[in-house]
Amino acid sequence: MADVAGITREELQLAARNHGMPLEALRYDVTPSGLHYLLIHYDIPQIDADAWRLHVGGLVARPLSLSLSDLRQRSTVTRSVTLECAGNGRALLAPRPLSQPWLLEAVGNAEWTGVPLRDVLEEAGVEPSIAELVFTGFDRGVEGEIEQAYERSLSIAESMREDVLLAFAMNGEALPPQHGAPLRLIVPGWYGMTSVKWLSRITAVGEEFGGYQMATSYRFRSDPAEVGEAVTRVRPRSLMIPPGIPEFLTRSRVLDAGTHEVRGRAWSGLGAIERVEFSDDGGGTWSDGRLDAPHRDSTAWRGWSIEWSASPGERVLCCRATDSTGATQPLEPGWNVGGYANNAVQRVTVTVRG
Amino acid sequence: MADVAGITREELQLAARNHGMPLEALRYDVTPSGLHYLLIHYDIPQIDADAWRLHVGGLVARPLSLSLSDLRQRSTVTRSVTLECAGNGRALLAPRPLSQPWLLEAVGNAEWTGVPLRDVLEEAGVEPSIAELVFTGFDRGVEGEIEQAYERSLSIAESMREDVLLAFAMNGEALPPQHGAPLRLIVPGWYGMTSVKWLSRITAVGEEFGGYQMATSYRFRSDPAEVGEAVTRVRPRSLMIPPGIPEFLTRSRVLDAGTHEVRGRAWSGLGAIERVEFSDDGGGTWSDGRLDAPHRDSTAWRGWSIEWSASPGERVLCCRATDSTGATQPLEPGWNVGGYANNAVQRVTVTVRG
Repeated sequence: MADVAGITREELQLAARNHGMPLEALRYDVTPSGLHYLLIHYDIPQIDADAWRLHVGGLVARPLSLSLSDLRQRSTVTRSVTLECAGNGRALLAPRPLSQPWLLEAVGNAEWTGVPLRDVLEEAGVEPSIAELVFTGFDRGVEGEIEQAYERSLSIAESMREDVLLAFAMNGEALPPQHGAPLRLIVPGWYGMTSVKWLSRITAVGEEFGGYQMATSYRFRSDPAEVGEAVTRVRPRSLMIPPGIPEFLTRSRVLDAGTHEVRGRAWSGLGAIERVEFSDDGGGTWSDGRLDAPHRDSTAWRGWSIEWSASPGERVLCCRATDSTGATQPLEPGWNVGGYANNAVQRVTVTVRG
Repeated sequence: MADVAGITREELQLAARNHGMPLEALRYDVTPSGLHYLLIHYDIPQIDADAWRLHVGGLVARPLSLSLSDLRQRSTVTRSVTLECAGNGRALLAPRPLSQPWLLEAVGNAEWTGVPLRDVLEEAGVEPSIAELVFTGFDRGVEGEIEQAYERSLSIAESMREDVLLAFAMNGEALPPQHGAPLRLIVPGWYGMTSVKWLSRITAVGEEFGGYQMATSYRFRSDPAEVGEAVTRVRPRSLMIPPGIPEFLTRSRVLDAGTHEVRGRAWSGLGAIERVEFSDDGGGTWSDGRLDAPHRDSTAWRGWSIEWSASPGERVLCCRATDSTGATQPLEPGWNVGGYANNAVQRVTVTVRG
């Protein structure tokens, strides 16, 4: 794993704004709202929820203009969904792509309540000519020298999945401003950039949308000149609650020798989690952890644990998830220009006291 | 103002854990819980609120052991309090002290509900021999090579102030884990390190407490060998909501020429805010802003605004608060070893488009 050094002012400014989930919060199945990760491209917009309306237009048969109370009066669903930022792990790449410098904390699992997107699209009329839906947020800024509202598209097939939500509540309460109030998209299984916050409108289009966040950003490239593949679904990852107690500045950890239960969570947007392994020698040898019972919602992370016999010395703890497609976590990161989807195994250094 | 560069891995790890308040959230008089700043020395501890008790002991006449329901059944108070981290502004110092690298976001104003500390102390019996109260948290770690629970003391005189609270609710809801659940201290006017989270016990002592967070940390020193003065009350500061829209990476801002209302908040732990000035030329010339009506609670920040005529070009916006003691914000930071209490004026660079 590369060392991290020389973070720039720009990166620090982003790190000061965008919140990670301290890893001990992996103990909560439902991440408290204030501990859920946040990645906000521009500023949190100021929106009057009473005057706000969602506009659904473009190639639909019947354009809609919906108020928040229109949406609340529909049949609603609550679903536990694990969201992870596509840039999680970016600051562990070398050379380090300049953007939000996430280590491993850009994740959270919340209870989202809202209306299935499919229901709204069916009411608007899903014409055969529709290829994609474009989701436009109220947040506005400049990126790649282009002034823009944050805007992402999703194919009509993905948009019609039953688990895609237009969410107005998080953990049983109205969405907080920073999580997209009054309404946001939630697309389980995809990296977080897909779940557009502060929705303003949904536009049905007949061809692939070429906006900045689709064609320029969020693509896997080994060279900036490439077109690259789109970043889509979440690669498998497991994280553990770092055992022991930390040193304030270095975050290095100490604990006493003996048997400790190590716990964590694992998730994948490609398939169900089928295995989590644990190593206390930096990935040299591995033992299978126990998986908790599957979550009620397949869109949520899955708990895992292992009894660890800690003998004195310095130990490097690792965990590695494998999903039902056979996808697993690499020991070393794969590099790309944007620093996306680095799901290399977590390493936690612990000094075990005799 | 010094440039910021070369942030280390240790600093990034802290920045990824400790949350700042994005400055556009200055628009909310009551900071949403998830946007309030957080500085957590060790890990968020896991506490069973049902089994938890607060122990009040030491030199008191009648030691107490109080459950959360004991505390909730008492006469409670709700108070709006602005808290700021003593390290706010640290990353703008040169050379930069190595610790949590705050820029300007380590602040928030919340509604705290709880029991006046004074009431509990009076029940326990305030003996004349008591010099200080020691507040011990459940959070445990290593700092300065010493394993410790987070622990701070406060003089009996400050502890008996009517506005010091033992708080179990924030913004009308049970304290979130990261803000000190089930019970924390709130000491208005003092930097945040004083408001000990995750309280375990309060111990009355007959002399000055010499724990790490009092004698070693949180002292103003120009040289590490000095004893230094204790960091106590919050120096005056004002911040503005950065106008215009941001560029994603650089956070540089653009807006159109014309008249704009610039709004912000100001606070001081030394006295009431009496003046906020604004400059659009980097502090060369200043205009008086309008102060909003004083807050219901004198312990909360005060809103301010100004009509700004923005003419085309690059502008450096600054604001400067002065309080009733005459204390004001310096244009350049004063340096100290720990990087505390840097209340130098905010600078926001904006490109005004013609």
